[in-house]
Amino acid sequence: MNFESTLAPIREHLKDIEAGKTTRRAWLESLLERANEVERDVKAWITLDADGARAAADAADLKGTGGLLGGVPFAAKDNYDTHDLPTAYGSPIHAKTQPARDAAAIALMRMSGAILMGKTVTTEFAHRHPGATANPANPAHTPGGSSSGSAAAVAAGMTPLAFGSQTTGSVIRPAAYCGVVGYKPTHGQVNASGMLANTPSFDTVGLMSQHVDDLVMARGALLAESVNPLESVSLRGSTIGISRGPFWSETSDAMQELIEGSASALGALGARIIEFDDQGAFDNLAEYAQTISGFEFARTMAHERLYAFDRLSDVLREGRMTDGLEADLQSYTKAIRAVERQRLGLDAAFDAVDVVITPPSPGSAPVGLHYTGSANLNLVWTTLHTPAVTIPAGRDTQGLPLGLQICGPRHSDIKVLAFSQQLHKELRAT
Amino acid sequence: MNFESTLAPIREHLKDIEAGKTTRRAWLESLLERANEVERDVKAWITLDADGARAAADAADLKGTGGLLGGVPFAAKDNYDTHDLPTAYGSPIHAKTQPARDAAAIALMRMSGAILMGKTVTTEFAHRHPGATANPANPAHTPGGSSSGSAAAVAAGMTPLAFGSQTTGSVIRPAAYCGVVGYKPTHGQVNASGMLANTPSFDTVGLMSQHVDDLVMARGALLAESVNPLESVSLRGSTIGISRGPFWSETSDAMQELIEGSASALGALGARIIEFDDQGAFDNLAEYAQTISGFEFARTMAHERLYAFDRLSDVLREGRMTDGLEADLQSYTKAIRAVERQRLGLDAAFDAVDVVITPPSPGSAPVGLHYTGSANLNLVWTTLHTPAVTIPAGRDTQGLPLGLQICGPRHSDIKVLAFSQQLHKELRAT
Repeated sequence: MNFESTLAPIREHLKDIEAGKTTRRAWLESLLERANEVERDVKAWITLDADGARAAADAADLKGTGGLLGGVPFAAKDNYDTHDLPTAYGSPIHAKTQPARDAAAIALMRMSGAILMGKTVTTEFAHRHPGATANPANPAHTPGGSSSGSAAAVAAGMTPLAFGSQTTGSVIRPAAYCGVVGYKPTHGQVNASGMLANTPSFDTVGLMSQHVDDLVMARGALLAESVNPLESVSLRGSTIGISRGPFWSETSDAMQELIEGSASALGALGARIIEFDDQGAFDNLAEYAQTISGFEFARTMAHERLYAFDRLSDVLREGRMTDGLEADLQSYTKAIRAVERQRLGLDAAFDAVDVVITPPSPGSAPVGLHYTGSANLNLVWTTLHTPAVTIPAGRDTQGLPLGLQICGPRHSDIKVLAFSQQLHKELRAT
Repeated sequence: MNFESTLAPIREHLKDIEAGKTTRRAWLESLLERANEVERDVKAWITLDADGARAAADAADLKGTGGLLGGVPFAAKDNYDTHDLPTAYGSPIHAKTQPARDAAAIALMRMSGAILMGKTVTTEFAHRHPGATANPANPAHTPGGSSSGSAAAVAAGMTPLAFGSQTTGSVIRPAAYCGVVGYKPTHGQVNASGMLANTPSFDTVGLMSQHVDDLVMARGALLAESVNPLESVSLRGSTIGISRGPFWSETSDAMQELIEGSASALGALGARIIEFDDQGAFDNLAEYAQTISGFEFARTMAHERLYAFDRLSDVLREGRMTDGLEADLQSYTKAIRAVERQRLGLDAAFDAVDVVITPPSPGSAPVGLHYTGSANLNLVWTTLHTPAVTIPAGRDTQGLPLGLQICGPRHSDIKVLAFSQQLHKELRAT
């Protein structure tokens, strides 16, 4: 069974609404109907607030206009606080937790007129222990994690836009596994307050959709920046770096073929393709990332360690909670200082290219729902705070989606999005 | 009227308890009794949970021992989430807000056996609009802000230890105004999750007490680091930089005399005193800090802007909320990139000295409770993420406390605390 479904770009829906061809309520109803068809198999949602969303859509239709994203439905991973919906952080400990405030990103979306449809499944505290969500491309396979429900809801056509959060590979990997576009901004650029902390040094608000342009619009709402369509990028004359990175040996044959094939295709379109030289910026990053995540996560989870330790999953209790407490301040400080310098080093290394393409995951989604896959292919980019986008770029022999990750130096988000949009178009065409 | 009261160091209380000379409950009762005497004048507390604290102290007495800080009473500024006490963030909007989780710092203290006595007054969302707290040294004067209640509760002898939070000068300034020791760690070192975000790029967990050693113990609990007493520092052979900084012209005569006098006294004790050269690290920081705080705070407050704008104070609505929304992404990014480089520059500038001494505030606490004073003297240090301590170091002609601020490069917290303890001792003696 395949539960994927294609959605039109948000800008087209808004144009039709503007022209009186449809209403915000009708758009919402089409999504709710889709959820009604597939949710029992995909299991993307923790809470689907159909009535709340309908009331908001009707109000927006009545008012006629409602901000940049007036009437645009969206979903939020259940580690974002919402003042009107419970927020369980993927843990039975918080089954009844009701925050008083919206996370900043949620309130900013609503301020732009967007309508929260509900909350999507996250792994336990955005770590590894999975929820029930299945991959819409093949429900015997994981959707990836930790933003499992958001990726699946977008791929299945139940929402045009969904928030994820990324500490290592929690947006890019599930987006790639589910065959949708994922965007992890430069760290710190989008306000993460009210999103449950995991590792504050890495935690980043992320977004998923089927179209790069949808993410540009949502980013505009979050930053109060221009939401003009991206300018098209000329591949001829551009320089694209191929980064195999320290975990290339973990990638599947299909992924390696996709990267090599994409490089050839882009070369044929006039781009100069070079091997990306990280100039040492990736040295020891796996170790540093492990130390930083361990040190910080064991402390952000102090409340649960103290009051509900026995209600944490085994994987959390015996894994991260244990190794995290073993990381001492001296090792942590050494890692923090090293990655700070390596971030500046990577920015400089990017001078040689426009963007980098690299695998977003080792391969396609692994079979089974017990393991959300490895985030190793995301680790260096997230640790060094770069913006990253994944676009769907192929299928493996099982018909499962394969993505292509596009990265650039910190604060180059618009350029990375523009190249991603161009590559999405070109690689689909080739 | 003067409501100040001297407290013994925490380590002495614990020694007496260990030796069976007193109990944790008796210690707590002495503090509650003090609160009973002075709270109506000082107004430091939002919630004083006497019964909860008594039950915890009795339980700790019964158990005999309870971790590193077994039975140590402490207070938390009311912008730290607490799962068992309401958390209003200094705003009527949140008068009934009850968080589900403890902030990381609160849970870590409790994990070490410390006992939460209650929540202290914060200015509105840790910005400027003040609460009712008065300065224990003279209740006609402000205690400073935003950690108003914590500084006053410690100065008045109602608690040995209190959490503040600092985004510009919200720990160091009120501690200096109230004549207590304040400590702002290197940014990011102490986990700030569950403390209400204001400007995440600057927000730092801070602590106040009457003794540097108390802060060393609390820091140990927060970081799971050693809580051995600090080694004493030899001033002979040390190099102390005097930093007048970009806001020296705003300091009072009494503050300037204190700095010059302290420099002379430390010189007489054998320290080499030099003018601190920031090597350009302070350039344009006031402008950058304003841009970063404005951009971030206007977004962290998105929930209140959307749902309760008319219940914000005038000063917030017409000040920070307005200028914050005027800051655009381009200016914000420019500021973020500049301060990142200037942090590395300041670390290098510190190579020339062991620590720096500099004013913690323009002078003593201004008269009146409507204005918590200027944070300009803290701005460069907080923006550049250095650890900072203020120690009480004198009185002005009105008998109001004057502090001395000690700073060092990032991650040099133990050295800064050790020098602070030595200076606290030496300058009291001279």
